[in-house]
This record gives sequence, structure tokens and C-alpha cells, in this order.
Amino acid sequence: MNFINIIDYVGTFAFAISGIRLASAKQFDWFGAYVVGLVTAIGGGTTRDLLLNITPFWMLQPSYLIVTGFALLFVILLGKHLIRLNNTFFIFDAIGLGLFVVVGIEKTLAAHFPFWVAIVMGMITGSVGGIIRDILINEVPLIFRKDIYALACVVGGLVYYTCFMFNFKPEFAQFLAAFSIILTRILAVRFHISIPVLKGNDTDLPSKIL
Amino acid sequence: MNFINIIDYVGTFAFAISGIRLASAKQFDWFGAYVVGLVTAIGGGTTRDLLLNITPFWMLQPSYLIVTGFALLFVILLGKHLIRLNNTFFIFDAIGLGLFVVVGIEKTLAAHFPFWVAIVMGMITGSVGGIIRDILINEVPLIFRKDIYALACVVGGLVYYTCFMFNFKPEFAQFLAAFSIILTRILAVRFHISIPVLKGNDTDLPSKIL
Amino acid sequence: MNFINIIDYVGTFAFAISGIRLASAKQFDWFGAYVVGLVTAIGGGTTRDLLLNITPFWMLQPSYLIVTGFALLFVILLGKHLIRLNNTFFIFDAIGLGLFVVVGIEKTLAAHFPFWVAIVMGMITGSVGGIIRDILINEVPLIFRKDIYALACVVGGLVYYTCFMFNFKPEFAQFLAAFSIILTRILAVRFHISIPVLKGNDTDLPSKIL
Repeated sequence: MNFINIIDYVGTFAFAISGIRLASAKQFDWFGAYVVGLVTAIGGGTTRDLLLNITPFWMLQPSYLIVTGFALLFVILLGKHLIRLNNTFFIFDAIGLGLFVVVGIEKTLAAHFPFWVAIVMGMITGSVGGIIRDILINEVPLIFRKDIYALACVVGGLVYYTCFMFNFKPEFAQFLAAFSIILTRILAVRFHISIPVLKGNDTDLPSKIL
Repeated sequence: MNFINIIDYVGTFAFAISGIRLASAKQFDWFGAYVVGLVTAIGGGTTRDLLLNITPFWMLQPSYLIVTGFALLFVILLGKHLIRLNNTFFIFDAIGLGLFVVVGIEKTLAAHFPFWVAIVMGMITGSVGGIIRDILINEVPLIFRKDIYALACVVGGLVYYTCFMFNFKPEFAQFLAAFSIILTRILAVRFHISIPVLKGNDTDLPSKIL
Repeated sequence: MNFINIIDYVGTFAFAISGIRLASAKQFDWFGAYVVGLVTAIGGGTTRDLLLNITPFWMLQPSYLIVTGFALLFVILLGKHLIRLNNTFFIFDAIGLGLFVVVGIEKTLAAHFPFWVAIVMGMITGSVGGIIRDILINEVPLIFRKDIYALACVVGGLVYYTCFMFNFKPEFAQFLAAFSIILTRILAVRFHISIPVLKGNDTDLPSKIL
């Protein structure tokens, strides 16, 4: 187990915790919360692997299911005291996001797709899990409305691409891309930087038409 | 048409009926109700086949589309009288679940994945259709909050694995696994056995944050 | 760039606009609206390509991402004046639907599946994008409840099949199928032709049970 493995588990743990906590807010049972946590952690990478036509990563080793089990145990045991760890989870989540996006980019390039596909896949890897989580708990996906999240993944992708253009070593490109994602997330949340809201007419909505 | 085929159609019929009835409760039109019924019946197996990278089962023979058509006709003709058949549908649904999970396990093992993947795939086969159904009618998925459903699939998977460890004949392992799923479902519903709810804080929810 | 390309872009543009407008009605930010627009435009074809086990079409050329970018710009710049273009968008959307369904049918036949699978894939190509759009904005999918949309795709598929049976030239079959879809959409909306609603009991719903 090397350094990357540890970050992978930390990220999986943080993503799973976010799913389990939101599921618990909707009175899901333990098993339902586990499933939501797992889908939050592996949903993005699974979507990417299906699109790239390779075997979904979590089917090759049981560690993601086990880490999610620990995340469930953690939430059950700590309960309301979890709220004090919010800042810690935010950092874990940002670190996990950085790694997940970089892994998504690398896998896509390894499958011989062009760079723009890799950037999209990095974003899918980082954000689709959270989107599926919000669909499962029947809420409008948070990342479409608050802070900079999916865009941070794109920033990371562009940094990676720039490093690549300048012939930087892969390890350095990976580090800089992940770092830029983590930094973007921290700055966005710290200074409440948001993307402008697209003002629309809610009479367009299906529920207002019928 | 052998015995397994008949159970397959009975299960498909019961799953489709559950989708069509919930769609009708949301004033879907006939075609929409048909689609929801179909997705409920084939959604789990389709997800499994995509993950295993094999051709989705329903694309190989039109019988699943036809059985769903009969289910729609059945709901249209019987209307309110359907409610008297609730117990029958529950049994059909449980039998279908037992078969679907076993088929999911077998297909996964045939694709040379380890047993823990097969157990997950059995659960996906049995429960993802109902999850997509509830997403389409814009409700929080029922299986995450009520009775023992997805867990019954895991119980079946563990029974299958135990039979395999003891070198039981495949037919016997299949029968015992399906039987344990049906029994778990009946006991859970009859005696209102639930998994504990994970108590959470609804101030965590996106709709409360924004 | 030939005639088919132009229609493809027009359809993509119209589909993306519908996603972006609905996202804006839910106060999505620009990036979120872009993602919803993109998913509306490419969701159906992507689902089809995953089921057919071929590389999703939008991963082979960046034009769909670019056209969606223009659609976002268009909505941002025109804002409330967009409503005057509703009839234009409806026609674009219908033309796009006609083309998308025909492309879905052709790709499925090219992958050596039987005609009934091709008709289903045509419908999936034309309607799944709109379904995912409505799930992302947390509304009950519109196409299940209003006007004739998915059924128009099936009509087009049957017209194509009929042409095929009579040994019509492929180009002519494609044109007639697309034309029948556009016509069905226009007639359905103009004369408020709907499929009967399936009357049901809302006490069946999960939210009423729990």
C-alpha cells in the first residue's frame, strides 16, 4: 500500500461519508445509507469506466466496499459529533477530488482518447458520484447550484494539459493538477466564490405547465 | 418454454405491474406507464449486463417487452380491483426477486468475476429496477427506507456462496438461494422487520443549505 | 460539413436549449446549466451507444460540446426574449428528434440487432436525454405525461420498418421516418393530442405509505 492508495482510501472515505450523512438526513436505513455512500464514492469512476468500455474499477478489488463499510460505522458511532469534523471532511473531500480527477484523466489518455475527452472524464470521475447521490435522496444536485465543484475539476484538467504541453514529468503534472483542484475548492468555499446563476422563468417547468 | 422461463415471466410481470401502478398514481399516460413498468422489470439486469460488459439480456429476445405489454393491459382492465390482488403480487414479486438475484449471480460467475462481485451483482439485478422506477416517479427510493429488500438479495448471495463452499450441486444452490430470498422477504413484510434507521440532521440537505 | 451535419447541430442546439432553459428555471449556475444542456442533447445517444457497446458518439468529436456552449451563450444573451422564439425552438426540436431517432435506428441495425431492438433504440436516442434532464432538475419526466413524444419515435421506427419491408431505398426510408416523427410531433402539439392517462391510486406511492 503506497501513498496513492492511502489518498484513494481517504477520498473514498470522505465521499462515502457525504453520501451516508445526506441519506441519514432523509431517514434512510443503514443499508440504504451504505448504498448511497458507496454510489457517491464509486459512481463517478463507474460512469467513466462504462464510457471508456473498461471494467469498473471497484469490481477488481473489494477495498472500496470495505472502506464504505467503515464510513458507515463511523457515522453510526459518532452521530451528532460528526458536525465538529466538517472542516476535516471538507479537506479530505477536496484531496479525494483532486486524486479522482487525475486518475480519470490518466485512464482516459491510457485508453487513447484525446485530451478534451480526458478533461471531461476527469470531471465525470469527480462529480457524477455526488450527482447520483443527490438524485437518490431526491434533491436537485447541489453541485449545479453552489460553490465551484465541477469547474474545479475542469481547472485541474487544464492545468494537467498545460503541464503536458510543456513536457513536464507525468508525476509533476499529476501533482500540479491535483493541487490546483484542491486549491480551487478551498478558495471557492473560503471566499464564497460562485459561478453566476442563470436567471430563468419557472413557468417553463413541467410542474407549472401541467 | 421450461420452468425457469415461466418464473422469469412471472417475475417480469410482477415487477412491471409495480412500476405501472406507481406510474398511474402519478398520472402518467399509458405509454409513460409502460416505460416505467419496463424499466422496473429490466433496469436491474441491464445495469448488471452493462457492468459485466455483455449484451443486455432484453435485447436478445422480445419477450420482456411483450410481458410488460400484458402487464399494462392487465392494469388498464382491472383498475381499482387490482388492490385485492396485492398479496398475490407480493408473492409473485418475491419469487421474481429470488430468480433475478440467482440469475445475476450466475452470470457474474460465468464472466469470471469473484464471488463478492457476484453477490453485489445479484443485489443490483434485484433492486436497481425498483430504484430507477422511484427516481422516474420523483420519489425517494422505497427500498432504502422500508422493509428488507436489497438486504434479502445479499442474504441469497451468502446462501449461494455457502452452498458453493460445501460443494452442493449448482441446481440445489440456486434453489436454496432463491428460497432464502423469498423467505426473507415474506418474514420481513409479515413481521415488519426493518433495518434500523440512520438518524441524521436534515440541516445537511442541499435544500436547507441554499 | 454536409446537410446531415447541419441538422445534427440544429437538433443538438435545440435539445441543449431546452435543458439550459429548464436548468435556469431552477436557478442553476452557468456551469450547471451547461451540463444539463449537454446531457439533454447527448444523453439519449450515449445510453444507446452503451447498450450497443460502441464508443459514445460525442467522445469522437468535440462538436457537441461546442454547440452546447453556443446554446448557453445564446440563452445568457437573449434571456427573456427567448420566449418569443418558442415556436422556432419547437420546430428545431422536432427536426432534431426526427434525425436522432433515425440515426439511432441505423446504428442499431449496423450493429446487427433485429428491427424491434432498433425501434426501441430509436426511442431511447430521442427521449432519454429529456428524461435525464427532468431527473436532474428534480421534476417528474414531462414526456411521460404530456403530448406525444416517445410514441412519435416509435411511429418513426414503424415507418422505417415498413419502408424496409417494401425495399425502399435507405435514403427514402430515412427521410420518411424522420418526416413522420416531425409531423406526429406537430400534429400532437397543435391539436393537443395526448395518450390517455392511466388513472391510479396515489395511496400506492412510497411517500403516502411511510
